[in-house]
Amino acid sequence: MRLKDLGERALLKKLAPLGYPVDAPLPPGDDAGGVWVGEKALLLKVDGFRYREVALRGMGPFEVGFRGVAATASDLLAKMGRPLGFALGLFLPPEAEEALALGLVRGAAEAARRLGAPLLGGDTNAGEEVALVVAGFAEAQSPLPRRALPGDLLYLAGDRWGRLGAAILAHYQGRDLTPFPAIREAAHYPLPRLGLLALAGLLRGSLDSSDGLAETLWQLSELGVRVELEALPLYPDVLAFAGSEAKALELVLFGGEEFEAVLVVPPEKREAVEARAKEAGLPLFRAGRLAEGEGVYFREQAVPRRGYDHFRP
Amino acid sequence: MRLKDLGERALLKKLAPLGYPVDAPLPPGDDAGGVWVGEKALLLKVDGFRYREVALRGMGPFEVGFRGVAATASDLLAKMGRPLGFALGLFLPPEAEEALALGLVRGAAEAARRLGAPLLGGDTNAGEEVALVVAGFAEAQSPLPRRALPGDLLYLAGDRWGRLGAAILAHYQGRDLTPFPAIREAAHYPLPRLGLLALAGLLRGSLDSSDGLAETLWQLSELGVRVELEALPLYPDVLAFAGSEAKALELVLFGGEEFEAVLVVPPEKREAVEARAKEAGLPLFRAGRLAEGEGVYFREQAVPRRGYDHFRP
Repeated sequence: MRLKDLGERALLKKLAPLGYPVDAPLPPGDDAGGVWVGEKALLLKVDGFRYREVALRGMGPFEVGFRGVAATASDLLAKMGRPLGFALGLFLPPEAEEALALGLVRGAAEAARRLGAPLLGGDTNAGEEVALVVAGFAEAQSPLPRRALPGDLLYLAGDRWGRLGAAILAHYQGRDLTPFPAIREAAHYPLPRLGLLALAGLLRGSLDSSDGLAETLWQLSELGVRVELEALPLYPDVLAFAGSEAKALELVLFGGEEFEAVLVVPPEKREAVEARAKEAGLPLFRAGRLAEGEGVYFREQAVPRRGYDHFRP
Repeated sequence: MRLKDLGERALLKKLAPLGYPVDAPLPPGDDAGGVWVGEKALLLKVDGFRYREVALRGMGPFEVGFRGVAATASDLLAKMGRPLGFALGLFLPPEAEEALALGLVRGAAEAARRLGAPLLGGDTNAGEEVALVVAGFAEAQSPLPRRALPGDLLYLAGDRWGRLGAAILAHYQGRDLTPFPAIREAAHYPLPRLGLLALAGLLRGSLDSSDGLAETLWQLSELGVRVELEALPLYPDVLAFAGSEAKALELVLFGGEEFEAVLVVPPEKREAVEARAKEAGLPLFRAGRLAEGEGVYFREQAVPRRGYDHFRP
């Protein structure tokens, strides 16, 4: 079967278990892989992308390199992994300018620096178009899988919800983001949250969200729960950009590239989670709860599954 | 400046220090990067390549996936890092068959398994051609940089010297490798040597050799020594394939893709190194010595610098 008929998620389901260890700290197909070394889990993650698929209007090589480290770090942090370092695999056309390569690596180094981790080199290759793979490794005392039980509470960490949807829409519509600096900043420098680590040991599970919130919540429901959204974060600038609440909710649900985390909290941990997040300066939004059943619902309305598939764009 | 004018090695020299930590266990630009975690170094390496650039006649997706993990593992092992796991970043055309992806990952998993390490997942992306980046991480009690002093001895580890040169030549000449099974095996399954780890603590330095032995030795000479080759390994099958000693020596010096290690041994460690290698079943060839000065010489003749440059093929 051809990949465009199979689809990306079906392919990943087949690939993920191949060679994956049975006693690993995280199951195959989770946001990152890992091994136990003594009492500690060491996590490894790669994330690859093509330059032209992620470079929104106004983003240059620096921002694309920054985005690359952010994408990989987001997966590691959602698993409670403290990043130890990153490395870059670059494909560059021989006709490209040196400044492009330097910009990519400088942006990646800046994102790594803000996450308290170094850049540990990489590899360059000729390619027909500019493409990057960012590898990152991390250590985790309490590695956190994708996991959920009926009765758990649902939180959204971070404050980029809807802002990336807005930035992507602005890109395709040619709209100027100057009046919306927080949207622009969220799109150009989507730094994942070290503050998530303050919640280690308190959560049932968590998922990196980067293919759109709705898609992430559908993946959450596949763990065997019904996702009942009661509220979604609607920031004033996203509302102003969208022009209506309905349009703003679309941006929140079907954006993508947020590099934020969806958190599953046992009800008895609610207060502790909220207190620690506040201490750590981690924005946290209580979005709903999980119930028996399946599917994703927002105020009783079914949320359609629309996400990004690399092989069926 | 364009990359094809700058060249790959000059580019890497500019990129390697960006964001690299000052107190790292290995210097920027070494075969792998790393950080200290307690008493131990954790190493990270990525290596990327295009399928069509490495798939010799007779190699399928399985062999190309195997080769990918081998390339990354070779760098980690040359630094005395015991591989902990690998992850794959894949670029695949949407029109490609599922079997291609499965073959690549199965081959990668098999190489990882033979190195005692798991495959820890990865990431898929659409791409115009098939390309891979393999990330690997490792732990090292005594991380070993590229390092050399005049008076040190030079050893070649492994037994693929000349065999890869032969396989690459056979590919371009359309020659059948059936009469040369060890050459075929070396090209299709170039497994790096876990036995190198038995030498931890005894070596002055080591270099992964994958762009051709001559190029590796030139990089060694750039550490501030003159490389004096006294002998090179000439295996009977490589001699038979080449047809003459002169042609076989060409294959040894200007092959590439061996994924073997060049070892620098302090003279007082010579016996211990040879004994431990023998115990560990690691093939070791005494190739010469290092002296004051610069350049690479084989029996007093200068060895030209010819290696592979991705941006100036």
